Amino acid sequence: MPVPVSSNGRKTSTPQALPDTQSRTDHRNVAIDRVGVRGVQHPLTVRAANGTVQTTVAEVGMFVALPAERKGTHMSRFLQVLAEHAADFDFDAATSIARHLRERLDADDASVELQFPYFLQKAAPVSGETGVMAVQVRMSCRSGAVDETRMAITVPATSLCPCSKEISEGGAHSQRCHISAEILCSSRGPTIEQLVGRIEGAASCPTYAVLKRPDEKFVTERAYDNPKFVEDIVRDLAVQLDADPAIAWYHVASENFESIHGHNAYAELTRDKR
Amino acid sequence: MPVPVSSNGRKTSTPQALPDTQSRTDHRNVAIDRVGVRGVQHPLTVRAANGTVQTTVAEVGMFVALPAERKGTHMSRFLQVLAEHAADFDFDAATSIARHLRERLDADDASVELQFPYFLQKAAPVSGETGVMAVQVRMSCRSGAVDETRMAITVPATSLCPCSKEISEGGAHSQRCHISAEILCSSRGPTIEQLVGRIEGAASCPTYAVLKRPDEKFVTERAYDNPKFVEDIVRDLAVQLDADPAIAWYHVASENFESIHGHNAYAELTRDKR
Amino acid sequence: MPVPVSSNGRKTSTPQALPDTQSRTDHRNVAIDRVGVRGVQHPLTVRAANGTVQTTVAEVGMFVALPAERKGTHMSRFLQVLAEHAADFDFDAATSIARHLRERLDADDASVELQFPYFLQKAAPVSGETGVMAVQVRMSCRSGAVDETRMAITVPATSLCPCSKEISEGGAHSQRCHISAEILCSSRGPTIEQLVGRIEGAASCPTYAVLKRPDEKFVTERAYDNPKFVEDIVRDLAVQLDADPAIAWYHVASENFESIHGHNAYAELTRDKR
Amino acid sequence: MPVPVSSNGRKTSTPQALPDTQSRTDHRNVAIDRVGVRGVQHPLTVRAANGTVQTTVAEVGMFVALPAERKGTHMSRFLQVLAEHAADFDFDAATSIARHLRERLDADDASVELQFPYFLQKAAPVSGETGVMAVQVRMSCRSGAVDETRMAITVPATSLCPCSKEISEGGAHSQRCHISAEILCSSRGPTIEQLVGRIEGAASCPTYAVLKRPDEKFVTERAYDNPKFVEDIVRDLAVQLDADPAIAWYHVASENFESIHGHNAYAELTRDKR
Repeated sequence: MPVPVSSNGRKTSTPQALPDTQSRTDHRNVAIDRVGVRGVQHPLTVRAANGTVQTTVAEVGMFVALPAERKGTHMSRFLQVLAEHAADFDFDAATSIARHLRERLDADDASVELQFPYFLQKAAPVSGETGVMAVQVRMSCRSGAVDETRMAITVPATSLCPCSKEISEGGAHSQRCHISAEILCSSRGPTIEQLVGRIEGAASCPTYAVLKRPDEKFVTERAYDNPKFVEDIVRDLAVQLDADPAIAWYHVASENFESIHGHNAYAELTRDKR
Repeated sequence: MPVPVSSNGRKTSTPQALPDTQSRTDHRNVAIDRVGVRGVQHPLTVRAANGTVQTTVAEVGMFVALPAERKGTHMSRFLQVLAEHAADFDFDAATSIARHLRERLDADDASVELQFPYFLQKAAPVSGETGVMAVQVRMSCRSGAVDETRMAITVPATSLCPCSKEISEGGAHSQRCHISAEILCSSRGPTIEQLVGRIEGAASCPTYAVLKRPDEKFVTERAYDNPKFVEDIVRDLAVQLDADPAIAWYHVASENFESIHGHNAYAELTRDKR
Repeated sequence: MPVPVSSNGRKTSTPQALPDTQSRTDHRNVAIDRVGVRGVQHPLTVRAANGTVQTTVAEVGMFVALPAERKGTHMSRFLQVLAEHAADFDFDAATSIARHLRERLDADDASVELQFPYFLQKAAPVSGETGVMAVQVRMSCRSGAVDETRMAITVPATSLCPCSKEISEGGAHSQRCHISAEILCSSRGPTIEQLVGRIEGAASCPTYAVLKRPDEKFVTERAYDNPKFVEDIVRDLAVQLDADPAIAWYHVASENFESIHGHNAYAELTRDKR
Repeated sequence: MPVPVSSNGRKTSTPQALPDTQSRTDHRNVAIDRVGVRGVQHPLTVRAANGTVQTTVAEVGMFVALPAERKGTHMSRFLQVLAEHAADFDFDAATSIARHLRERLDADDASVELQFPYFLQKAAPVSGETGVMAVQVRMSCRSGAVDETRMAITVPATSLCPCSKEISEGGAHSQRCHISAEILCSSRGPTIEQLVGRIEGAASCPTYAVLKRPDEKFVTERAYDNPKFVEDIVRDLAVQLDADPAIAWYHVASENFESIHGHNAYAELTRDKR
C-alpha cells in the first residue's frame, strides 16, 4: 500500500517534477562495461527439459553496458524486468531477460547471472530409497551483438585417492569434492540432469541424500574400486564434453576437500572447440 | 532407479545381513546433547498466516539427544523425516518435524533448525510500484520435556546517524543495517509479516525492492527526519516486543554496516519475560 | 596527516564545540546487554606458552553493557583500546582488553571476542617434513562482576566411518572434519598446542600440511585402523576434557563433511563441571 | 617430531619402495591448464615500498600446467615451495614463487594467487587520531612463456547518491561501498599505498578506523559535498589509471551496499592499454 504523504509534512513530487540526474550527459569519455544490480534474492520457478517444474531461490545479477556519454543507468528497471520473468523461468526465459533488459534500458549489451540450487530426486543405488539432493546451477545470459548463454553446474561427489590406495595395506583416503562444468552450446545442449550425470560419471562415486546400510556398502566399494586423482576427474569429464558436438566451449574444475590435509586439491581446464 | 548389482562383481547384501554398528552399546558413559545432520539444502513450501503459499529453499539442521549407552544414531532417517514434511511447512509443521524425529529416532529430545529467505511483496511508499524483497527467517523447533519453537527474522533496513546529522552542516551518514528479532511465544504470536513490520518500525526507514524517483525522495527524507543510533534501534524494537503479551522471550540485535568505517556497529539485548 | 580544513570552506570545530549526542539521557528504560563494534580486522601478535611469538590477523568484536539511562556509547574508544593492546597479545592481554574497555567506557560489563588462525609447525609422521598448518582460535573475554575467558579451537582432522569399514569388502569412506573444543578454566588450563593435541587425539587421524608418500601410507592406515563415528569423536574428546581438573566448563563439537553425501554429520555436547 | 613406526605394527616404507602413481603416463590426451592446491592459510610478511614490514595472513592457491602425457602432479612440493618464500614476501618474491614452482614441478607454466588483508595506519582527517584499517589485496603471479603479476586491491569507502541529494529536501542516502582496482604494469607501478589513495580519491569520502566528533563532521560534509553514483566511482578511478603510463591493463569495479535497498549496485570496466 503506497503512503503518498511524506513524514514531517514534506511535499511529495511527481516523477516529472524531479530532476533526472542519471539522464544527463557525461564528459569523462569512459564507457562502462557493466553496470546494474547484484545480490538480489528472488524466487525462481524452473521448468525442466522433461516438463517437470520446481521452485527454487536465485541470487541474481543484472547488468547493461553504458555508453561514455550517458551519466547513469536506471537501477529500478532491472528489478521490474526480473519480476516480469521470474514466474516461468527456463533456458529461453533466461535469454529473454537479457534481451528485455537491453531494450528497456536502451543498451547495446545486457547480461543476467542467476545462481540457484536445483533439486534432484535421487534413488539410493541398492535400496532405491529416494531423497532430494541439491546441485548448484549458474546461468550467464548475454544479449549483445550476439546472444549467448553459458550454464555451469557444481555437484558434490566422492573422490578416492589412487596413490593412497596403492601404497596402503588397508583403506584409501576419500573426501567430498565439488566438480563443476560450465558449457556454451552451439545447438540444444544437455539438460541439467544430463550434465549432472556426466559430472558424476567422472567422480569415484556420486553422492546421495539417503543411504541405508546396503547402499553405504555399495558406494564405499564403488569408490574403492574406482580411485581418481583430481587430475583424473577433470580429464574424464573433459573427454565426455569433447565428445558432445553440441558443446562449443567448456570449463571443467574439481576442488577436493582432502581428508588428510586442511587445504584442498584443485584442477581445471578450459577448451574452446569453435 | 536403483542399481542393485554392485561394481566389479561384489555381492550386495540385505540390510538384515549387515551388522548394525550404530545400535551397539557404548561404554564411555558420555551422553550427547545433539547429533544429526547439518547443511542440508531442501525446498520448502511455506503457508503464511493469511493463507498464501510460497516456495523457498531452506538450509536445514536436524538433531536428537543420544543417551550414554547408545553407540550411534541413524543418520538416514533424518532425511526421510524431512522429506515427509517439506511439502506443506508452516509453524505447526516445524513442531511436527521435531516430534516426528523424536519418535522415529527413539530419542528423548529432538530439534530442527530451518533457515530460509522469505519473500515479501513490497509496494514503494509513493509510486506504489511493487517488488519482491527477501528477509531471512530462522526457525528452531525443539521437542523434549516440553515443545518449544523460536522464530528469528533478519531484515535489511536503513539507519541514519543522529550524531552525524546534529554536528554536520549538510547531510548525515546513513547505511544499510541488518536488524533481527528472535521470539519465543506463549500463545499465538505475530506472523512473519507482523514481526517484519515491527522491525522496520525500529529503523530510520525500511528498504524496498523498487524505488522510483519520488520514492527515493521519500525514503531519503524519512531517514533524515528519523535518525537512529544502533542503540536506538534495539531499544525501540524492545519496547514493541515488551508490549506484546504473547511474546515470552526475545532477543533483538542490529548490525550497522557503517558507511564511514570498514567495520560495523552492533547492539543486542535479550529479555526473558517468564 | 590530519587535514584540518574542510572541503567547500565549511568550518571545522573543536570537540568541545560539538554536541555530544551519545551522552544524553535516555528515557525508554531499556538497558542494552552489549553494544560496540564488530568485523574489525586487526594484526595480532600472539605469545605462545613456550615463549615463541607469531603474528596473525584477528577478526575482532568489542562490546560494553549500556545502562538504561545512557543514550549511547562512544564507538571510537573501542578501537583506541584495541590498538593499545594488539602488539603483545596473550591470554592475560585478552583479559586486560576487556578490563580496559570497561574502564575507558565507564561500563559495568565489557567483553572482547577475537577469532584468528593460529599456525602450528607440524612434522609429517614418517618423513618428518615440516609445514605450517592453521587451526582457528576464538577467545571470548569478559570483565564484569567476575572476569572470565573462554577459548575455542577448531582443528581440521580425518574421520573414517566404522560402519562403512565393517560392512564393505574394500575401503571405508573417510572425510575431512572440523573438531572444536571450547573451554573455561578455573586455573591455568591447557595451551593452544595442548588442546590441539587432545582434539587430534579424538579423530581417526590428524591432518598435516606436507605429506610425502611414506607419510600418506601412514595416515591412510592410521585412519583405517582407527575408525570413528562423529559420536565417537565428541565422546573421546569429552573423556579427555573431563579428566582435566583445570577445565571447569567445556563444549565440544564435530562437523564431518561426509564424502558420500552433500550434507554434513554433526554432534555436540556441553558440560558444566562447576 | 616424526613418528616412524606405524600403528598396529604395519610396516613403514622408504619413498623408493613405494610406487609413484603420479609419475605414470596418461593416455587420455588431455592437458590440464592448472592443477595444484587451494585454501592454504599461511602467515605472510610483506615488505612495503617504503621499507616498513608487516605480517599478515594469506589465503594461497598454487598451480602448474600439466602436460597431457603426465598422470599427476606432486602436491606436497607446492607447500614446500611456499614455506621457503613466506618469510620475506614482496612483489619480487611473488614472482619468484611462481618461477620456483615451475622449476620444482617441472612445468611450462605456474601461477600463485595470494589474498591477504593489508593494514594501513590512517590518521583521522581533523583530529589526527591514528588507527589501523584493512584493505584486501590479491596478487596473481604467473610464470610461463612470460612472467606476469597482477595486483588487485579492494578498499571500503563511502558513496553518497547524487540523485538522492538533488531531489531531497534534507540529507542524501549514503552507504559503504567496496571499490577495487586490479592492475598489470609494464614498469614499476604504484605501491599498495598509492593505489589505495587513487581508489579513495574516486569515492565520495574515504573510510577511517577512528573518527572523533570533529572527524565525523568532516567526513559527513565531505561526502555530502562530493556525491557519486557507482558509475562515477569507476569512471573517476579509470581516468586516474588511464593517466599512469606504467599501467598496461586494469579492471576497476565498485559494489555499493545501497542503504535504501536489500541489494547492491555494481559497476565495472576493463581496459587493455597494450
